[in-house]
Amino acid sequence: MKILVISTVIKDKQKETIMSAAAKAGAEVYFLQSENEITSDLQDAEIVYGFAVKLAKTSKKLKWLCVPSAGVDFLMRPDSFANEECLLTNSAGAYGVTIAEHIIAVSIMMMRNITDYYAASINGKWAVPKPQKSLKDCRITVLGTGDIGTSFARRAKAFEPESIVGVCRSGRCDEAAFDRVMKVEELDSILPETELLVMSLPATKETENILSRERMALLPSDAYIVNVGRGSAIDEDALAEFLDSGRLAGAALDVFRTEPLPEESRLWKTKNLLITPHVAGNLTLEHTLNRNVEMFCEDLINYAEGKEMRYLVDRKKGY
Amino acid sequence: MKILVISTVIKDKQKETIMSAAAKAGAEVYFLQSENEITSDLQDAEIVYGFAVKLAKTSKKLKWLCVPSAGVDFLMRPDSFANEECLLTNSAGAYGVTIAEHIIAVSIMMMRNITDYYAASINGKWAVPKPQKSLKDCRITVLGTGDIGTSFARRAKAFEPESIVGVCRSGRCDEAAFDRVMKVEELDSILPETELLVMSLPATKETENILSRERMALLPSDAYIVNVGRGSAIDEDALAEFLDSGRLAGAALDVFRTEPLPEESRLWKTKNLLITPHVAGNLTLEHTLNRNVEMFCEDLINYAEGKEMRYLVDRKKGY
Repeated sequence: MKILVISTVIKDKQKETIMSAAAKAGAEVYFLQSENEITSDLQDAEIVYGFAVKLAKTSKKLKWLCVPSAGVDFLMRPDSFANEECLLTNSAGAYGVTIAEHIIAVSIMMMRNITDYYAASINGKWAVPKPQKSLKDCRITVLGTGDIGTSFARRAKAFEPESIVGVCRSGRCDEAAFDRVMKVEELDSILPETELLVMSLPATKETENILSRERMALLPSDAYIVNVGRGSAIDEDALAEFLDSGRLAGAALDVFRTEPLPEESRLWKTKNLLITPHVAGNLTLEHTLNRNVEMFCEDLINYAEGKEMRYLVDRKKGY
Repeated sequence: MKILVISTVIKDKQKETIMSAAAKAGAEVYFLQSENEITSDLQDAEIVYGFAVKLAKTSKKLKWLCVPSAGVDFLMRPDSFANEECLLTNSAGAYGVTIAEHIIAVSIMMMRNITDYYAASINGKWAVPKPQKSLKDCRITVLGTGDIGTSFARRAKAFEPESIVGVCRSGRCDEAAFDRVMKVEELDSILPETELLVMSLPATKETENILSRERMALLPSDAYIVNVGRGSAIDEDALAEFLDSGRLAGAALDVFRTEPLPEESRLWKTKNLLITPHVAGNLTLEHTLNRNVEMFCEDLINYAEGKEMRYLVDRKKGY
């Protein structure tokens, strides 16, 4: 049984963890930097950890692909897998901590105009204080109550917001940090009283353009938006118009419909828009990387022992 | 009994709160925008809420000065009060929430290089992700365990740091968010294992230059510093050298030895230094303003009823 581990970021420590799990599973491991390094004698690998999009498309021998990302939208085309039975696991659950920290930081940055002070300081200027908003007493709505949404809610709770309302498909979530959990169908009713809207949704048919122009208009003009899920969830043109005309107080986007964001995008020049280059959940944080590898190894043992795998993606739902 | 309320930021809501307390105390209230508006018939005011530094220096009739700031260092000169018996209260306790949010935001901004991404975005550039640090598993030391330090610790706790150690004069603090509280004399022993040093100290003789060049050298080179107390607590020249030479990972300063920070200061050009213009505790946040006014009104009733006042400053300690 051959396992290919394709990664530019894992270090010796994580390699040892994988080799130890592979030994238990009775498998050989091959470490590669990129999919292009897969030689002909490795084309028959049974398991791949990494973004082996091309191999998945062509290999009928591939039985399990584990991707080190939470989103799997890029693997949802009808021809994504040559082997229709190929298992797919993702790493949703590894990113909650790091993305939650990003959300908290950019939310406060917007509410306190810290970006303006920083921009002034680059030019050696002592800026004039501007009015502030606060997470204290804030009405927060979290669209998507998975690992990211709940990790954020637990942290946000410590800031004494007025409320944290979760919104998800089922309308159910056990996380105690949510004061209330609603169904996606009820989203329109909560938007008018939302002061901070946090979006951490996978890219699926249902989430495509979920924050449409019409829904955006339901938010109060002093609301802030943070999107760390997928860019497809937001009508970007509408957002730019709303921000430029002051019908929203601010937005922080880490994800976009096209990434990298094209040079000619009007978003670069949009008022009160904080752009980060899809870094909320990158793998440079040691904790995230360890968690990612641990999750793969956990399922590697499950796979070898014929047990149910824990991080399996439901290909119909797309997450 | 005349009360002067000197403020440019209070609004009708806060004025009503003050007028209601003044009525109970049997006092007349005069609202002014600045100390320069004190006409001759108001020179004999018994109570002032506001920064009436000149009146305090000259009026023997002034019996109580309440300043809407936490720091009172500017009132600690021997000739600060014409009336030696004049009571002084401050508003320490009103700023914990707002300053704690600032500390969390700038800490994560530094650890995740968000300033770099923002600076790139101003120029329409999609930046390359950089390695991140995290509050998760971080060893945090909080120098100053008053309202600001404890408000920060409670919020930081939600990020699952490895430890939060408080450091204060007494070595005692009831706040449960601190894993340990040490005396200032023991500071040198905790610095080598500190990854984030948060400083929220008043300006006193004891805190002058407390983060000296020698102490700075005890911090590991991957440590971050946040100062929201007073600029006098840090050797600014040493800090600039340590940051420029990579002997510290970053610093976020909201306070400086000279404010506004002079144009010619080398700090503007110092590497990995985030400068904010003394805004961590400004009064533009509604919550802070309300709390500030509530504290004054609470002591106004105490004063009128001859009871012990709650927010009295110990003039010997200087806070």
